[in-house]
Amino acid sequence: MNFLEKRILQDGVVKPGNVLKVDSFLNHQMDIKLMEEIGKEFYRRFADKNINKVMTIEASGIGIACFVAKEFGVPMVFAKKSKSVNISGDLYVAEVESFTHKNTNQVIVSKSFLSTDDHLLIIDDFLANGCALKGLISIAKDAGATIEGLGIVIEKGYQNGGKMIRDMGYHLESLAIVDSMDDETGAIVFRQQ
Amino acid sequence: MNFLEKRILQDGVVKPGNVLKVDSFLNHQMDIKLMEEIGKEFYRRFADKNINKVMTIEASGIGIACFVAKEFGVPMVFAKKSKSVNISGDLYVAEVESFTHKNTNQVIVSKSFLSTDDHLLIIDDFLANGCALKGLISIAKDAGATIEGLGIVIEKGYQNGGKMIRDMGYHLESLAIVDSMDDETGAIVFRQQ
Repeated sequence: MNFLEKRILQDGVVKPGNVLKVDSFLNHQMDIKLMEEIGKEFYRRFADKNINKVMTIEASGIGIACFVAKEFGVPMVFAKKSKSVNISGDLYVAEVESFTHKNTNQVIVSKSFLSTDDHLLIIDDFLANGCALKGLISIAKDAGATIEGLGIVIEKGYQNGGKMIRDMGYHLESLAIVDSMDDETGAIVFRQQ
Repeated sequence: MNFLEKRILQDGVVKPGNVLKVDSFLNHQMDIKLMEEIGKEFYRRFADKNINKVMTIEASGIGIACFVAKEFGVPMVFAKKSKSVNISGDLYVAEVESFTHKNTNQVIVSKSFLSTDDHLLIIDDFLANGCALKGLISIAKDAGATIEGLGIVIEKGYQNGGKMIRDMGYHLESLAIVDSMDDETGAIVFRQQ
């Protein structure tokens, strides 16, 4: 069991509807020492790749992606969920359905910050049905960038996003894969990796 | 002229309507080395305060607040802009008008992560009319937390937010205060601090 799985067992809370609350340390309140550890672990897993940029999607991916980018010594770019009046010029756009918020957002990245020169590590906190990752992959492909890998903190192994991304041929690393949860007992079963 | 003012002059772009675009290094693509430098500078300015938590608001405040929290060795909590189905239980809520997006959001923080024990440093990327900071201050007060200070990366000195916050008696530090900009010449005038 790795450091993240231990932390999930310690501080994660299983709620009805297959909801895993990790908001005390990952996606509302953030334990910065854990973020640094996550950054180092993704560096270790993708150190052999030629990565020159980390990409994520707002909001909860940002903190994690910052510490991953710090380890690689590269900039981080995050896809924004709505068109801001301060983003002008040409944009890459993808539609992303949110499992959490039950709605659809346009996500955008300025064409200034992604190009055929970029070798991306795509980072996010959760992977469930894969809609956010599909949106980021679509934007990266529009830009002609190379996707060197994708790093997820917690994958819900009982949803199909992880299988879909791996079947597309991408190198996907999830620090913890939850195969099942029980909201009555609080039990969480991780996939052996 | 400090490191941030130099960087704004180098890479910031002045657009019509008093818009300062810093999306190549601060709030869309992020220069992580600059984020670390910003974290260290806020630590220097607030090192004498008894800070046990950093608070910000999604999305572009998150990366900066992470590196500030890292310097202080404390957790970071970010206010969320819409009610997520994964946030249950009691919430602190404030209304925040967005200058950038021309709309109003409810911002929320779970009551689990703010209490009378907390001594907060509130961080954000921009301060213009002060609506976001007012929302965060309102949430901190609802929680009975102590606001030890507020740290802003770029204050628009020609808008009234900074004066309003200082007049409320808070210790506000802005790393760069823009007193005027000219979108025809690209000139940016910083306040001497």
